[in-house]
Amino acid sequence: MSQKVRIALDAMGADHGPAVVVAAAELARSRHPDSEFLFFGNSTLIAPLLDARPELKSASRLIHTEIAVRMEDKPSQALRYGRWKSSMWLAIDAVKKGDADVVVSGGNTGALMAMSKFNLKTLPGIERPAIAVLWPTLRGESVVLDVGASIGADAEHLVDLAVMGAAMARILFGIDRPSVGLLNIGVEEVKGLEPVREAGRILREDKLADLDYQGFVEGDDIGKGAVDVVVTEGFAGNIALKTAEGTARQISEYLRGAMTRSLGARIGYLFARSAFRQLRERMDPGRANGGVFLGLNGIVIKSHGGTDAEGFAAAIELGHGVVRDRLLAKITAALARPGKPPRQALGGAAS
Amino acid sequence: MSQKVRIALDAMGADHGPAVVVAAAELARSRHPDSEFLFFGNSTLIAPLLDARPELKSASRLIHTEIAVRMEDKPSQALRYGRWKSSMWLAIDAVKKGDADVVVSGGNTGALMAMSKFNLKTLPGIERPAIAVLWPTLRGESVVLDVGASIGADAEHLVDLAVMGAAMARILFGIDRPSVGLLNIGVEEVKGLEPVREAGRILREDKLADLDYQGFVEGDDIGKGAVDVVVTEGFAGNIALKTAEGTARQISEYLRGAMTRSLGARIGYLFARSAFRQLRERMDPGRANGGVFLGLNGIVIKSHGGTDAEGFAAAIELGHGVVRDRLLAKITAALARPGKPPRQALGGAAS
Repeated sequence: MSQKVRIALDAMGADHGPAVVVAAAELARSRHPDSEFLFFGNSTLIAPLLDARPELKSASRLIHTEIAVRMEDKPSQALRYGRWKSSMWLAIDAVKKGDADVVVSGGNTGALMAMSKFNLKTLPGIERPAIAVLWPTLRGESVVLDVGASIGADAEHLVDLAVMGAAMARILFGIDRPSVGLLNIGVEEVKGLEPVREAGRILREDKLADLDYQGFVEGDDIGKGAVDVVVTEGFAGNIALKTAEGTARQISEYLRGAMTRSLGARIGYLFARSAFRQLRERMDPGRANGGVFLGLNGIVIKSHGGTDAEGFAAAIELGHGVVRDRLLAKITAALARPGKPPRQALGGAAS
Repeated sequence: MSQKVRIALDAMGADHGPAVVVAAAELARSRHPDSEFLFFGNSTLIAPLLDARPELKSASRLIHTEIAVRMEDKPSQALRYGRWKSSMWLAIDAVKKGDADVVVSGGNTGALMAMSKFNLKTLPGIERPAIAVLWPTLRGESVVLDVGASIGADAEHLVDLAVMGAAMARILFGIDRPSVGLLNIGVEEVKGLEPVREAGRILREDKLADLDYQGFVEGDDIGKGAVDVVVTEGFAGNIALKTAEGTARQISEYLRGAMTRSLGARIGYLFARSAFRQLRERMDPGRANGGVFLGLNGIVIKSHGGTDAEGFAAAIELGHGVVRDRLLAKITAALARPGKPPRQALGGAAS
């Protein structure tokens, strides 16, 4: 890593176009002046945006690309037309080549994961990468992973998720031994969760120095902030994340409706406006923006595609933070924990 | 079914004791005068409550039981000490014997499911029962099942869930062909979801008369009310339900905090109080109280244990409604759909 934090940006990956990405980079740089940017995308669109920001331009390089990955395409399609030459691929490739320390894209999640895997490859001992998110809780934030990079997990994969998630929590929350829980359901004596129970056994018995295993947690423990790191396989994790987002949106609709229904409510709303603004900000997924792909030879940050410049800047700043705090090196060290069995010796039931 | 709706109540199953159950029965009967009750529980506690309500008492029978199932016990423990003689077992048994049309309990969910399965047995062709809930959405309510009765599902089980859920939606929402979606995650080309995809294929090709299959839905579609019936296996379903409850509680905490932080917010709160009350009621799980156990030779309603009399009454009234509308007969008829393959011919991957 150079003294600067070099961030590769897929400028074609935001729903609202390169203007959001460039404005976000300017915001991020205003708060982290040690940032440098590599913009990948259509130079006809991007060059004028940089010309209008001389200070940002002086810390940026623009690499023209003809091809942008479309949001609706399947990963295999995107790989077919976008490999070697799309803005997304080349932004990832900058990390691979060592030209950048981290890559941020708001583009097609499946394509971003497929290209990241294909190009960066997984870390030694890791079969499948994971997507980790910062989940707002009553106690602050928790790391939740995997939220959909892959489906099903054997016990050893769940343990790897715990180790990677704890490394991320340690850095982002500044906690020495983050607490870790395995997402499970409250029904006792059920069949079919051998991998989760086995992972619990390993975490309990191994007593890893870098994390404090707390046992099983249920869906409603996530929002409570019961643990710093919630570990789950990707199917249930994705459903939990999307369901929480849906519930937050639903309540905010109710609230909007309730606040306009009567004169009293409308007057109340005027008085309580700033309180509502705070609430909206806490509930806004854009504030805790950015999934982090873990388990690869490089850090890839996925921003929400539909976010504004402030939201995209949050994803860029998350990228800046994990580079400054050497997340990748710490994960690599933590994964090489003593006593970890070789993968082929494991009998967990991957589905 | 008699002209009356005969409801068996596990009077020992509510966290706040028989007083809640008896008060709930009185409330339910005031709105549904054709209700009759069988109370199972400690007569020393219950008799005085009924004596104080002569009108309710005239429509009730009290059956003394010595044993109450404890909330913290595992299903196998509860079966060991509670079979044949606990209030929970005997309330279920009243349905088995034809003394009651439906049973309502707020007790230990795992024990209630275990006893229900053991005593009532599953319907022909159904291997495992399911728990269905009414989920509040922006469009009203949806039926979501299974939320945790069992883990994993083969394709045919998912199709059975769709059929049972649609029968419930038809009755409760008065829709001829309820729309049905299979809960899935948005990542394309993923391995491991064969059962969900196979169930989708069956539902698409069979074009069942009683439901309108709409394809896959994601977690955030539940709260939108995108479909009338959301079908999922129990692990993901339970995590979705608990996560939504946790998120709702979390936001309501934020709201409480935000509304007391400044003078303006406090004044605003006074004006908007009734709007907040409405919001709380819509978000309150007690309002849409009651999971329904489907797939058994008898209908079992699970109330939240921690609810108040109004919440428990909602569960009783849900029971009243499904009896009046002959849910069990309709499910039995719908499950015997033409062309349904015998179970042993199926190759779905139960986990």
